[in-house]
Amino acid sequence: MKWTQFFIPTLKEVPQGTEAISHQLLLRSGLVHMLTSGVYSYLPLGLRVLRNIEKIIRGEMNKAGAVELFLPCLQPIDLWKQTGRDQVLDDVMIKFKDGKNRPMCLGPTHEEVITDLVKNFVQSYKQLPLNLYQIQTKFRDELRPRFGIVRACEFIMKDAYSFDKDMAGLQRSYELMRKAYIQIFEELDLDVIAISADSGAMGGKLSHEFMVPASIGEDTVVMCSDCNFKGGKKESLCQGVICPECQQGTLSETVAIELGHIFQLQTKYSDAQQALFLDETGKQKPIVMGCYGIGVSRVLAAIVEIHNDEKGIIWPEKVAPFDIEILPLSGKKEEDSEIHELSENYYKELTSLGYEVLIDDRNESAGRKFNDADLIGIPLRVTIGRRNLKEGKVEIKRRRTPDGILVDKEEAISKISQILKK
Amino acid sequence: MKWTQFFIPTLKEVPQGTEAISHQLLLRSGLVHMLTSGVYSYLPLGLRVLRNIEKIIRGEMNKAGAVELFLPCLQPIDLWKQTGRDQVLDDVMIKFKDGKNRPMCLGPTHEEVITDLVKNFVQSYKQLPLNLYQIQTKFRDELRPRFGIVRACEFIMKDAYSFDKDMAGLQRSYELMRKAYIQIFEELDLDVIAISADSGAMGGKLSHEFMVPASIGEDTVVMCSDCNFKGGKKESLCQGVICPECQQGTLSETVAIELGHIFQLQTKYSDAQQALFLDETGKQKPIVMGCYGIGVSRVLAAIVEIHNDEKGIIWPEKVAPFDIEILPLSGKKEEDSEIHELSENYYKELTSLGYEVLIDDRNESAGRKFNDADLIGIPLRVTIGRRNLKEGKVEIKRRRTPDGILVDKEEAISKISQILKK
Repeated sequence: MKWTQFFIPTLKEVPQGTEAISHQLLLRSGLVHMLTSGVYSYLPLGLRVLRNIEKIIRGEMNKAGAVELFLPCLQPIDLWKQTGRDQVLDDVMIKFKDGKNRPMCLGPTHEEVITDLVKNFVQSYKQLPLNLYQIQTKFRDELRPRFGIVRACEFIMKDAYSFDKDMAGLQRSYELMRKAYIQIFEELDLDVIAISADSGAMGGKLSHEFMVPASIGEDTVVMCSDCNFKGGKKESLCQGVICPECQQGTLSETVAIELGHIFQLQTKYSDAQQALFLDETGKQKPIVMGCYGIGVSRVLAAIVEIHNDEKGIIWPEKVAPFDIEILPLSGKKEEDSEIHELSENYYKELTSLGYEVLIDDRNESAGRKFNDADLIGIPLRVTIGRRNLKEGKVEIKRRRTPDGILVDKEEAISKISQILKK
Repeated sequence: MKWTQFFIPTLKEVPQGTEAISHQLLLRSGLVHMLTSGVYSYLPLGLRVLRNIEKIIRGEMNKAGAVELFLPCLQPIDLWKQTGRDQVLDDVMIKFKDGKNRPMCLGPTHEEVITDLVKNFVQSYKQLPLNLYQIQTKFRDELRPRFGIVRACEFIMKDAYSFDKDMAGLQRSYELMRKAYIQIFEELDLDVIAISADSGAMGGKLSHEFMVPASIGEDTVVMCSDCNFKGGKKESLCQGVICPECQQGTLSETVAIELGHIFQLQTKYSDAQQALFLDETGKQKPIVMGCYGIGVSRVLAAIVEIHNDEKGIIWPEKVAPFDIEILPLSGKKEEDSEIHELSENYYKELTSLGYEVLIDDRNESAGRKFNDADLIGIPLRVTIGRRNLKEGKVEIKRRRTPDGILVDKEEAISKISQILKK
């Protein structure tokens, strides 16, 4: 992809009114743009990262046996009355009446809709277990949107729902998801802490939160220096014990962002919505449910919040919008035809090897190009400049290391393949 | 994919209150499910087809130089006041006030949002041309939703917007899109008629509609038997000429579904929203725009409306949810281990060759399996039954031909590869 044919509107200045470093970098590197408070557009570079995150999530969800579908944003309030959550979530729900005067809302989550769907089609234990998921836009009327896409009114979530015939089945489904989540966050290069947590508005007994330590975090995680204990602050205090698993440890606290939350809903929704099935003995029972969320757009922010330096973003390789950025440093084309030819050749060769490559073909100064390359944080940079090229050399530099290396121009491709190992 | 691990809730009966054959088949084959009037969930099989349609559209859009982004559904009404379209589209817009009492709407289209975005970042002719597109959920408050997902309140669109420095640029961008559209509909196996049309609420001078003849169509296309003339009914009559290009032809009429619409907006939006740039001479001018839509979910309905017979859907190969369906006809596993082993082996081999394969591993009668296979319409079916297998044979049948052929079980894979040519 050529920079001039793409759309990467980088900003030199830190935008006003932004506290979080991720918010600043997402705006400055042309990944997102604010339409109105709490509402963001994903620009082409940001969308590429989102798609990479989604791909990792999808891969692990499919491996765990979950099946993807796509549920509506528009939902009748009547459905929410069945569970009483039209009241519980009243503050954050976006509500309106449609042209036929029906009370409707925009889905802040989809337990009611999926339970209604499954209830229509599942009648027998033979059709269970079932795990259905989607990656979709959700809506919450946040009075105080914060930190850019971390707490927004419109955001992207992966939400999965499991359906089992009994508690043992739910335990299995839940454990599959818990393991899938650990794998997902590992692939996303996010060191999450999984803690058992309060189920809040979702209901049910057991839940786990997946938190990543970050200074902008709005939750507090308590960890013991000696044993394996990790807990939410509230839970630790509520239980009247600070570190239930050992006596010697001292506790430390860290603030963290919640990226995922999984719940054993049990029969809260199936009871309320009468989602019943016939078991092996012909007895009618409510389906035993779990639900499993990941904030996809929030993950994007968390990765930027954690992987950066004073110059810009440092993308983990698996989610980077491109693998390689080629920087031809030159003036007009006619002056530096060798530079341009070489970057075109590199582009073709690297692309044919399966790499995603961006060429900064703008007619800009070397300084501007270097600054923007550091800002948008592509993992590997190949700089082709007049001075080095006279010696037959080009520079290869990883974004995450301070210095580059000079290599013979003929050896650049093999060196890059060696470094990126694709 | 195994049927029992997927989620394909087929229906034997034609659902009540459905007129269109596509609506009936989409529901009966477990592709979509109605949540409430005009609002549909895409079930796993339907989502796979949607994704294939999107892939074709994306491929051609990218080839034509358009760049993908993702814009918000939530939009401030203030933005729409700049163009006066808060009034023009008042009937179909879903509006509400958020928690801060700001008047908001759900985007029925994105001209205002994208113009506002581009205006923020494009200042110079050097940044033009630019073509930005997205594939996204749109909302219209349809008083009379009809034919399932053909006219729905929530639907998926591909919408692209081109930005040029002058009319010549717009002509080029428009022509690129017109050709991309022809290519897209060809790949989708839809014989569209492109006619120049009324621009309606979009504004601008020239536009083309892409219509596919179908009995549930709500538009009428007029065609000449002799010359190349094709036109909308209204345009043909308005112009006071019936067939402007020739004198001899007789006219025929056909009803059709509108699947795409492209517009030369010119400066309607950039004037109203002050999206200006500096040209080569330093003069400030409004950006010259075009917009280009395809109803992605409506395309899904149109394909089903056109490609079916009395037994069910007949998917064109490029959009089919799976390439091949394997039908093991047998009772319990222990009785027919050879049948099960063979279908597993076929599954592994065909999958490793790059095919998407579905096995109907349900413990259902042969009749039910055949009926469902015809209903969901996978292009190629491999039937493994006891009687044929005694002779060392399996049956291969294309969905679109009436009869299957018997082949030696060892030759099935090579025969399939020959037929599907992947």
